[in-house]
Amino acid sequence: MTVSALLDWLNAAVHPIDAQAHRDALARQSRLTKPPGALDQLETIAVQLAAMQGAADPAVNNVHIVVFAADHGIAAEGTSAFPQAVTGEMVKNFATGGAAISVMARHLNAHLEVVNLGCINDPGELPGVVNRPLGAGTANAAREPALTQQQLTDALDAGREAVSRAQHQHGELFIGGDMGIGNTASAAAVICALLEQPARAVTGPGTGLDDEGVARKVRVIDTALALHGPFADTPLEALRRLGGFEIAALTGAFIHCAQVGLPVLVDGFIAGCAALVASRHNPAVRQWLLFGHHSAEPGHRLLLEALDARPLLNLGLRLGEGSGAAAALPLLRLACALHNEMATFAEAGVSEKSD
Amino acid sequence: MTVSALLDWLNAAVHPIDAQAHRDALARQSRLTKPPGALDQLETIAVQLAAMQGAADPAVNNVHIVVFAADHGIAAEGTSAFPQAVTGEMVKNFATGGAAISVMARHLNAHLEVVNLGCINDPGELPGVVNRPLGAGTANAAREPALTQQQLTDALDAGREAVSRAQHQHGELFIGGDMGIGNTASAAAVICALLEQPARAVTGPGTGLDDEGVARKVRVIDTALALHGPFADTPLEALRRLGGFEIAALTGAFIHCAQVGLPVLVDGFIAGCAALVASRHNPAVRQWLLFGHHSAEPGHRLLLEALDARPLLNLGLRLGEGSGAAAALPLLRLACALHNEMATFAEAGVSEKSD
Repeated sequence: MTVSALLDWLNAAVHPIDAQAHRDALARQSRLTKPPGALDQLETIAVQLAAMQGAADPAVNNVHIVVFAADHGIAAEGTSAFPQAVTGEMVKNFATGGAAISVMARHLNAHLEVVNLGCINDPGELPGVVNRPLGAGTANAAREPALTQQQLTDALDAGREAVSRAQHQHGELFIGGDMGIGNTASAAAVICALLEQPARAVTGPGTGLDDEGVARKVRVIDTALALHGPFADTPLEALRRLGGFEIAALTGAFIHCAQVGLPVLVDGFIAGCAALVASRHNPAVRQWLLFGHHSAEPGHRLLLEALDARPLLNLGLRLGEGSGAAAALPLLRLACALHNEMATFAEAGVSEKSD
Repeated sequence: MTVSALLDWLNAAVHPIDAQAHRDALARQSRLTKPPGALDQLETIAVQLAAMQGAADPAVNNVHIVVFAADHGIAAEGTSAFPQAVTGEMVKNFATGGAAISVMARHLNAHLEVVNLGCINDPGELPGVVNRPLGAGTANAAREPALTQQQLTDALDAGREAVSRAQHQHGELFIGGDMGIGNTASAAAVICALLEQPARAVTGPGTGLDDEGVARKVRVIDTALALHGPFADTPLEALRRLGGFEIAALTGAFIHCAQVGLPVLVDGFIAGCAALVASRHNPAVRQWLLFGHHSAEPGHRLLLEALDARPLLNLGLRLGEGSGAAAALPLLRLACALHNEMATFAEAGVSEKSD
């Protein structure tokens, strides 16, 4: 895809939310046999899904989880506790069903797809893995732009394609996951650029750096910000210069979900970074995003505040792969079931609140 | 059951936790393909369940939810936003499947039982409802002890019986729920007595009192505390003088769960009050308790601190019925699946953390 063709779809309008379905869902919640507001976030989620789906009976049975995997040149600066070989090794682990997200997808009866965008050690052809190679990882953002224009275009497009596949299979909810050693450094750099924060405000231990490692990571990100900051004049240019293939693919996926009207359940720090880029590119994207969990990565709080997001879970998770969103999926399903199946005061013959 | 026979079972020893299974589960978590600790509370829960069940592969497939329903004499003082008729009406709603916990139990494939301990408007015989009448609600604790000695004995025993039924059906997890208009006032009074707090520190809006209603509720609870405090010299005596039938039944249930080695997932404010009484009666009960959610009822924070509990969810729920614990159940199941089914680094050929 050329850059100009890319811009055509990236700038297409976002699907409208159904205001009437929203009002109807709110009214129904007030009639169900519980004190008003007693199910709080479970009520909110059901009402949001009803409005997104334009339905009286929202449902998220058919769920598509897509994990985008890629390596990061910035890892050469020593910003991760794990070696880069792990990215490709984990792609195999996803395919053979041993990774956390594989186990969760199986138990949640969700469709799991892995999109390999380019690892240092290419795992080759694997069942359930879509190969969309953009290079053996990104360039090192501490020295040069992480992605070329063509790589950015192709990565965004890989996200759009994954959403199209989910849509053609009648997906009712999209979860985007990530795998990429070094990607908390890339995400932190993009977030810093967009929120105009220094590295120390957003940088954390990722997969398990010690204090010295975090200090080094802060210096590397500050170097990258000094190099690219003056040229990162749009969200997509910040993404290109500082981000990663999988962060770009998630950004393209979230934008396209909003365009086709497919609700997104956003995972943690990496997916949250993509949600920020997507929402800064087009603020109308935000209304299609639900938030699954609050990551243990310390920079996630600033990111959630910038997105005005209140995630469902806060379990100290910091794994990625879409696992925090997957953990929250049963709450969306329960919220729908409660909305659709609870009796009203009139149906059950239950007395209402005293005046 | 006589009071002395009651004391025989109430003071029986608690089932021991399996220390070897605990060590083995911790060791297994460290070998799974994720950064150490990256699943945080999901790891902790799996390890706790493995230790409780003495199993390498913990499971909570067979889950028993028991909702104890009863009315409260203290409601005559105007401490609730809903009329007392609702308790019996909701028992019918549980039986016909329209209540929140009915919908949740169905979707979670959990066994739901309702134990009616005595409502103002008796709903009569209903499918799925065990009738164990102790009176048409408790006495008004603002004027006299809420329960007689015999009612306390019988209520605790009703809890024990429910656990025996769950155990005979090979239950792997017990969730105790509550239904009783006025029961946040009773629970707050018991909590105040045990934690030596004034009513204002623990009293909240319950099902939806306004500020004036909360102020009245505080005065009523302070009156009850002044009347009974000097005589509430044991946790069970505080429970008898200030509590309710369902709070006592939950207390008996939690104590018996610990005795037979059945893990408990504690719901919100009311079940939490029973967990406090049970743990004060015998501190060894505490190790059999997992905590599902942090209620919106403001006094719950003090209660959780006293129990040193870190619930899984904080969704603003304030419904009771066991709904907050039920909402957390999928997280326990995912935690078990991850523990049992994830690949180890060696199995998957994934590189470990760099030194």
